[in-house]
Amino acid sequence: METYLINGEFEAGVSPYDRGLSFGDGVFRTFTVSNGVPNHWEAQYQKLYDDCQALKLKCPFSQIILEDIVKLFPKDTTLKVAKVIITRGNSMRGYAVPQNISPNRVLIKSSLPNYPNNYFEQGVNLQVFSIRLSSQPLLAGVKHLNRLENVLARMEIVDSEMYDGVLLDENNHVIECSNANIFARFNSQLITPSLTKCGVSGVTRQRIISIAQLLGLSVAQESCTLESFNSADEVFICNSVFGAFNVKAIGQTTFSNYGLAAKLREMLNT
Amino acid sequence: METYLINGEFEAGVSPYDRGLSFGDGVFRTFTVSNGVPNHWEAQYQKLYDDCQALKLKCPFSQIILEDIVKLFPKDTTLKVAKVIITRGNSMRGYAVPQNISPNRVLIKSSLPNYPNNYFEQGVNLQVFSIRLSSQPLLAGVKHLNRLENVLARMEIVDSEMYDGVLLDENNHVIECSNANIFARFNSQLITPSLTKCGVSGVTRQRIISIAQLLGLSVAQESCTLESFNSADEVFICNSVFGAFNVKAIGQTTFSNYGLAAKLREMLNT
Repeated sequence: METYLINGEFEAGVSPYDRGLSFGDGVFRTFTVSNGVPNHWEAQYQKLYDDCQALKLKCPFSQIILEDIVKLFPKDTTLKVAKVIITRGNSMRGYAVPQNISPNRVLIKSSLPNYPNNYFEQGVNLQVFSIRLSSQPLLAGVKHLNRLENVLARMEIVDSEMYDGVLLDENNHVIECSNANIFARFNSQLITPSLTKCGVSGVTRQRIISIAQLLGLSVAQESCTLESFNSADEVFICNSVFGAFNVKAIGQTTFSNYGLAAKLREMLNT
Repeated sequence: METYLINGEFEAGVSPYDRGLSFGDGVFRTFTVSNGVPNHWEAQYQKLYDDCQALKLKCPFSQIILEDIVKLFPKDTTLKVAKVIITRGNSMRGYAVPQNISPNRVLIKSSLPNYPNNYFEQGVNLQVFSIRLSSQPLLAGVKHLNRLENVLARMEIVDSEMYDGVLLDENNHVIECSNANIFARFNSQLITPSLTKCGVSGVTRQRIISIAQLLGLSVAQESCTLESFNSADEVFICNSVFGAFNVKAIGQTTFSNYGLAAKLREMLNT
């Protein structure tokens, strides 16, 4: 059973004038909540704030969102997933932003997905999506509400054994999965796609970049072809809900190493 | 005073699980309504249907939307503007589309904008937006709810004398305005940008392509540079609310001919 708050209240619904609905004019975050406390909140809020800045949208204060979380996730609840949507606010028809607009916030509570054990043990299967991500430097990295490319990608999956897929850009460079970032390991070097033209720069991706050194790994953010990924010693994906999963296969290419995701999950403490 | 219907009812709001809000997973149309009757409904519905098809989204039957319009726009109302939003429906967190999903529809009534007289007489001023439209062939032409590029473009306007701006693509080709399509006339030839990689293919654009012959004009849809537009004999923009407006100036380039938009408005009967 999911429940939600709209601007901190148990309201029935969102205004049809909300620019999140009209234009996807907003941003969101998804993260876990333990006993009423959001995990890695500083990093989550910083990313939310930065994404709002990218859209020139007023981000509500951290304290306001934390009060919503306390209200919706009582202290005795087990591990849950929170999704926060911040939109620019309501306006009448037309793209112009009224001067006095005030952002809307939606907080949604849901259960942790019931991942099969083998996702944690051996990893997940990925296909290669046929849709190509478009290039928009002004929105690259931002977790905004314009996610039709992810929706169309996800609709390509028909095989229930397929967890997700690899999204490529117009130049056939690997960018991410539909709901996760992706890394390849070559010996002691991690490579993750640079996200200056498209893709979402997730908090867990950023955290892995920060802690990789503790595992004796260096990290580079650069353009990567699918061929390069397929020749990696190990591939894993990450997001703020499951932490990290190794990748068993990308299409027909299988990977026999899968120890890193488990180590990362422990260090990430998701 | 604006009012609205959600799935045909005078509901308070839209579900926070609506994928229109979460992902911009839907399409919309804006058109005028005279005495409770939507203008050029066949063309509007056909475009709505085609756009739904592009997103593999179930379009509600024409009759259902017409019943909504009758309910929200009584016969004695003067000329109004209707906006119809169709989203894929509600779903829990995640991009995957549930099998039994049912589309949501929102119908919003608003007044006709109070355009200054000189928009009809001499035309409007356009700037050139700095944001470039990204290229996504799977979504090009579709009036979907992922409109952040339009929002960011509109936010570039600070001069109140500026009605809108010209949106260029990554190759600096002219595509459209933030809320209108655009045409250039060279002698008896109309040129309008081809919209195979980005842009919205509006109903009024399509209607002008169909009726241009009646004015002795041929029409070509092709790639156009801004320089080419600036050298035109006449430039005009169009949408389903105002019909057509001539363009007085694009940035520093002024146009001295402006008779075509008035003729088109008469023929379009918007």
